[in-house]
Amino acid sequence: MKDYLTADEWCIIEDQFLPEYHKISESIFSIGNGKMGQRANFEENYTGESLTGNYIAGLYYPDKTRVGWWKNGYPEYFAKVLNSPNWIGLNITVGSYTLDLHKVEISKFQRVLNMKDGYLKRCFEAKFPNGKIISVNTVRFYSMDEDDIGALEYSITPLNFSGIITVESYLDGDVKNEDANYDEKFWEKKSQHQTDNLSFLTQTTKKTNFSLCTGTATTFKVNNKQIVDNICFQQFDQFLSHSISLHIEQGNCLSTTKYASNISSLNHPENELQEVCHKKLEQAQSKGFKKLLEEQAASWSNIWASSDIIIDGDLKAQQAIRFNIFQLKQTYTGRDSRLNIGPKGFTGEKYGGSTYWDTEAYCLPFFLGTSDQSIARNLLKYRYNHLQKAIDNAQKLGFTDGAALYPMVTMTGDECHNEWEITFEEIHRNGAIAFAIYNYTRYTNDHSYLEKYGLEVLIAIARFWKQRVNWSIIKNKYVILGVTGPNEYENNVNNNWYTNKIASWCLAYTKESLLNLKQKNNHQYTELLTKTNLNEDTELADWEFISKNMYFPEDNGMGLILQQDDYLEKEQLLVKDLPVSERPIHQHWSWDRILRSCFIKQADVLQGLYFFEEEFELESIRRNFDFYEARTVHESSLSPCIHSILAARLGQREKAYALYLRTARLDLDDYNNDTEDGLHITSMAGTWMSIVEGFAGTRVKDDSLHFNPFLPTEWSGFSFNLNFRNQILKIEINQHQMEIENTSDQVISIHVKGKKIEIKEKSVHQIEL
Amino acid sequence: MKDYLTADEWCIIEDQFLPEYHKISESIFSIGNGKMGQRANFEENYTGESLTGNYIAGLYYPDKTRVGWWKNGYPEYFAKVLNSPNWIGLNITVGSYTLDLHKVEISKFQRVLNMKDGYLKRCFEAKFPNGKIISVNTVRFYSMDEDDIGALEYSITPLNFSGIITVESYLDGDVKNEDANYDEKFWEKKSQHQTDNLSFLTQTTKKTNFSLCTGTATTFKVNNKQIVDNICFQQFDQFLSHSISLHIEQGNCLSTTKYASNISSLNHPENELQEVCHKKLEQAQSKGFKKLLEEQAASWSNIWASSDIIIDGDLKAQQAIRFNIFQLKQTYTGRDSRLNIGPKGFTGEKYGGSTYWDTEAYCLPFFLGTSDQSIARNLLKYRYNHLQKAIDNAQKLGFTDGAALYPMVTMTGDECHNEWEITFEEIHRNGAIAFAIYNYTRYTNDHSYLEKYGLEVLIAIARFWKQRVNWSIIKNKYVILGVTGPNEYENNVNNNWYTNKIASWCLAYTKESLLNLKQKNNHQYTELLTKTNLNEDTELADWEFISKNMYFPEDNGMGLILQQDDYLEKEQLLVKDLPVSERPIHQHWSWDRILRSCFIKQADVLQGLYFFEEEFELESIRRNFDFYEARTVHESSLSPCIHSILAARLGQREKAYALYLRTARLDLDDYNNDTEDGLHITSMAGTWMSIVEGFAGTRVKDDSLHFNPFLPTEWSGFSFNLNFRNQILKIEINQHQMEIENTSDQVISIHVKGKKIEIKEKSVHQIEL
Repeated sequence: MKDYLTADEWCIIEDQFLPEYHKISESIFSIGNGKMGQRANFEENYTGESLTGNYIAGLYYPDKTRVGWWKNGYPEYFAKVLNSPNWIGLNITVGSYTLDLHKVEISKFQRVLNMKDGYLKRCFEAKFPNGKIISVNTVRFYSMDEDDIGALEYSITPLNFSGIITVESYLDGDVKNEDANYDEKFWEKKSQHQTDNLSFLTQTTKKTNFSLCTGTATTFKVNNKQIVDNICFQQFDQFLSHSISLHIEQGNCLSTTKYASNISSLNHPENELQEVCHKKLEQAQSKGFKKLLEEQAASWSNIWASSDIIIDGDLKAQQAIRFNIFQLKQTYTGRDSRLNIGPKGFTGEKYGGSTYWDTEAYCLPFFLGTSDQSIARNLLKYRYNHLQKAIDNAQKLGFTDGAALYPMVTMTGDECHNEWEITFEEIHRNGAIAFAIYNYTRYTNDHSYLEKYGLEVLIAIARFWKQRVNWSIIKNKYVILGVTGPNEYENNVNNNWYTNKIASWCLAYTKESLLNLKQKNNHQYTELLTKTNLNEDTELADWEFISKNMYFPEDNGMGLILQQDDYLEKEQLLVKDLPVSERPIHQHWSWDRILRSCFIKQADVLQGLYFFEEEFELESIRRNFDFYEARTVHESSLSPCIHSILAARLGQREKAYALYLRTARLDLDDYNNDTEDGLHITSMAGTWMSIVEGFAGTRVKDDSLHFNPFLPTEWSGFSFNLNFRNQILKIEINQHQMEIENTSDQVISIHVKGKKIEIKEKSVHQIEL
Repeated sequence: MKDYLTADEWCIIEDQFLPEYHKISESIFSIGNGKMGQRANFEENYTGESLTGNYIAGLYYPDKTRVGWWKNGYPEYFAKVLNSPNWIGLNITVGSYTLDLHKVEISKFQRVLNMKDGYLKRCFEAKFPNGKIISVNTVRFYSMDEDDIGALEYSITPLNFSGIITVESYLDGDVKNEDANYDEKFWEKKSQHQTDNLSFLTQTTKKTNFSLCTGTATTFKVNNKQIVDNICFQQFDQFLSHSISLHIEQGNCLSTTKYASNISSLNHPENELQEVCHKKLEQAQSKGFKKLLEEQAASWSNIWASSDIIIDGDLKAQQAIRFNIFQLKQTYTGRDSRLNIGPKGFTGEKYGGSTYWDTEAYCLPFFLGTSDQSIARNLLKYRYNHLQKAIDNAQKLGFTDGAALYPMVTMTGDECHNEWEITFEEIHRNGAIAFAIYNYTRYTNDHSYLEKYGLEVLIAIARFWKQRVNWSIIKNKYVILGVTGPNEYENNVNNNWYTNKIASWCLAYTKESLLNLKQKNNHQYTELLTKTNLNEDTELADWEFISKNMYFPEDNGMGLILQQDDYLEKEQLLVKDLPVSERPIHQHWSWDRILRSCFIKQADVLQGLYFFEEEFELESIRRNFDFYEARTVHESSLSPCIHSILAARLGQREKAYALYLRTARLDLDDYNNDTEDGLHITSMAGTWMSIVEGFAGTRVKDDSLHFNPFLPTEWSGFSFNLNFRNQILKIEINQHQMEIENTSDQVISIHVKGKKIEIKEKSVHQIEL
């Protein structure tokens, strides 16, 4: 756990350069715009520890997998988000010294991520060994509006001398992924081209043949007056630069403005990449840095209007929740249904930038609540687009007749993970993908997605479950053998309750949704039957029978749901009795010891109770919560938020708050000692959920929003904006009351603590708590 | 399955060159002498498919492991047997053509592995594109007596022309392992040196710093007259050669004799390697090829005297059993307790040449029955030498107080395997290592090993089991959770019966052996207590309590031992109903499908019944055999032999014979389509066991040899030599009688079909069957 950042309501601030935390800061101060993003690497040369990262959404490399022992069915490749050409680079020379924060004396350093307006800035003074001091100011951002454009401004002022300062502004395509399995480079140069202020580098990825043209436009100014003479431009292989050497008088300012554009074959014909890139750069130049930055602030202002959470009386909590929302919003904008949300977003290479079930289980509710519903719909569409590949994937594993198993980890629908206990056995992901369809429909009341796309996915998933169960003569029920649940600290278990539960639910929901469609639109229903080759009689009947005869492990004596068969055979220990020196257990214990212990990474019984809360008595939820929470080590970043929401539901307010704290500042305080690899983007959605679903108790039931709020004692109040069916509500909760403003021009009826309330358009309603 | 070899009682014969089977033949015709060995690569240049392999026992490289996702406790390296300098190489040039069997017309080809006398020979005629024909004869062997020496003779006769023939005889150190994880080379040159007929190359392995000097001595002869003039010698980096170009008259013979010696720092001081190598080569040269070959035949004659099996009436079976015995005997001689038996011996790289539990469970009985008992004792000693590392290994996994977990795969005692379900969970290996101590003691009546070394191993293993069990409140017994049994088609199961059984047995046997020692030699006992820091009261009592209160999964309704908890939850299918197109299932099914199926790789319940046969009623063995055999796919080469022995025991003679056939010609007929990777050396011991323990029904009970023989109907008789406590018995079984010759000078009392028989020294006894 670290504590080196300054608390602020709208900014993340590092007030002093700490080289030992630089890689952490590179992650935390990352910027992006949904289409591309980058770690907060320094523009100037830096020889200290650093992880360079520039990423373009949707571009990946199918790296050769690396396994100990190959198993039939393993994927051929592991998709890796590509580290792309580095466009921010500046070599600064003062006399015979190169500016390098690893080698100079630094003062007045400040790095700021301004989340309100969406940019990264930095300033510092550097003293060279010869005593010369320069002051540097930089601002950098990826434009949310002009989403092919990145821009930076870098200003140098000699403070105690006049002399020659050289700035070489470069574009470097000779980059590699730190996580390359065989130390290979993934890019090959296609062409490069230069004019007096422009550089273009077009490269192609090996195997996948993505082409990317990265262009930069560089201008130099002294005291805001552009310099056009004596600009020297040169190029080597995959490296293009513009440089200038000027005598700068003490106190004058030499600034470099640089625009970059990344144009890829994902969105443009291959032969037009440089042309498009050129046009984008010209547009950016004609708008100018100031205008772009103003537009950026306006864009973010719009985003915050529908998604901000305000916390009163706790500055660090305020900073943290905005940080989580900011990072999610700059990772995924929902404009392109081919894209998704990698666990690290644009902040690192780990997990290959691929899609996990995190998206459906955690990110979807966030985007539903904070964005136009088209955004969440695009997340669903991503899976629909991969349906055929999911069917192929299931076939590879021996399933037939249109059964689908969605990949555990994927970039374009192909499975990319290569541990059998996860790849082949963590099949609950199919359930989360189905549940997301239900969740979207419940929240939005938009049934068109379900009917047009969702049902095809549900049918294929139902077919998978049907083939995956087997009848146990001993239990006289259907069982699901050999699975890994969301609690990955158990592998290859029988009858994981969560998996059985979500499978049973899927089968029932698919049938019910089909029958609804049949009633509503028989023509569309018939078309669907034909398209999916569905046998209305036998398949639907089978699904119902299996769903109703699914086995659920329980301990009747203790009134507990059992995580899986034989869970109580384990030695029953509690997390509170674990020595601190042995935590996190995954860093101290061998895998077998973790597996045979009763300790839980994230409690999947509780995940199931969260999803299907309405089906269970509060007392049953309480019993299971108390049992499993005491055994859960929360070594998944996805774990505490669900526990926090349940604790809130159970009125265990202090517990709810304590669990919330584990998620909110996970990255800012480097809780898990791994922020340097990148941020935990997907679990950030859980932080938002902890407040909205936890503290505010927000649910959608019977076509209406329900709230059951409380105020954590540490706060004096909190408020948030919520987009519910295109009506934006401003909700404010303090110790005494809840205030709801209906900003829309239509009446809305909601429930607070079970009581129905109608709020007129453009009006505010207060409820005593 | 292939069928391209000619049947012969003493030889393996390939009568026609089949390039598509060349890699298979390279494995099958491999030669070795326990200290080194090689695949049957051609001496001359060959551009067809080939796997070059020259191996030195005990030399390995710790290759960087390759895993998908690292898990705490995984080994740092994977030991690899080293492909070593290639000393057999000859470049043959006739006119402008290089001899290459991939490019010439071949006739009269024959490759013969002479198992009686222990050498490999080959002859062929090669016709070059210009019509010139040469005849070639080669003989090659590794001397069993002079075990640092390999020798070859290569003769070329021009049949239809006279002309220049050039022979370049080389030593090539620029070799690599095909299975290198990162395509690295493992050797680095230290020095090279040449005289007019000698070449020396000294190389060192990276990381492990093994030094090896390989030397060759080359002489050329024409019609058996040595040529000393005009020998040209040259060297490049890691390559040294001697060559000669001579005009050879039609019908004359140009022959090359080459001796090689491999001297390593494993056995000699590093600065003396070349000197020792030189001396060995001089000794070989002074003996000469003919004498060395005569000695080789004599050595093998001795080996066969104590280990031959003769099968009457089935030439292919005869050839096969001798092939199995020959390969085992040339892989391991038992002279060096630092060495062990890799699953592929000197015949390929697969499995890294490391030691598995195969040694204790399969090879030990073979060497006990066919060799002096010191050989088997050295196999046990190997594990004793690794005891501290096994304790360290257990510590790494969280065990304490001197508990040992022997590695699953090892070269020098370090664990080298990196799949958690095997590395961490296939803990039954500890049991096999303990059982081998018991088995050795039972067979030899030599208690000194147990007392001096074995008990320390047993104590450490008992301590492991004690810590590995946990008390189940539900079962009111000790359980062992999260293991993989010998049936590797189940992973991470609870209460694998075999593991629980052998653990319980270990605990009891260790206690019993300690009490025996206490009674016999209290001084030695007290010393042992001190050395192992054993608490006589608490530890022994704990072991007994756990042993007696171990849980064993059973199905009382069917009278079955259950392979593991919940085995009967699976869909119960039979192997006979599996489509042929889906077998072997490990090549057709994904891992999860294999795991959740009821199909068994090798039946560990039956392995346990084999080990502990005396504890079970015949009817119980039959019930379990019939149940598990029907579900076993035998996709481990170690599987059929145990089933064959049990089938024999149960009087299921045809089944016993059918299962025997699966082991006997596994490699000769390439049954599993993988002989090209190398031979299944360790499972060859199972073939021997199937005859000796199966058909002959050999057991040691109550200090006496017992036989319960039958003759497979396909044979007219079989006989074998058995070394029992330094008395060699010749046992012959035909349809009507069993004849036992006691070749020793002491009386022996044995049991045949339960009846006690005394056989005088140097006499023969017949028993009607």
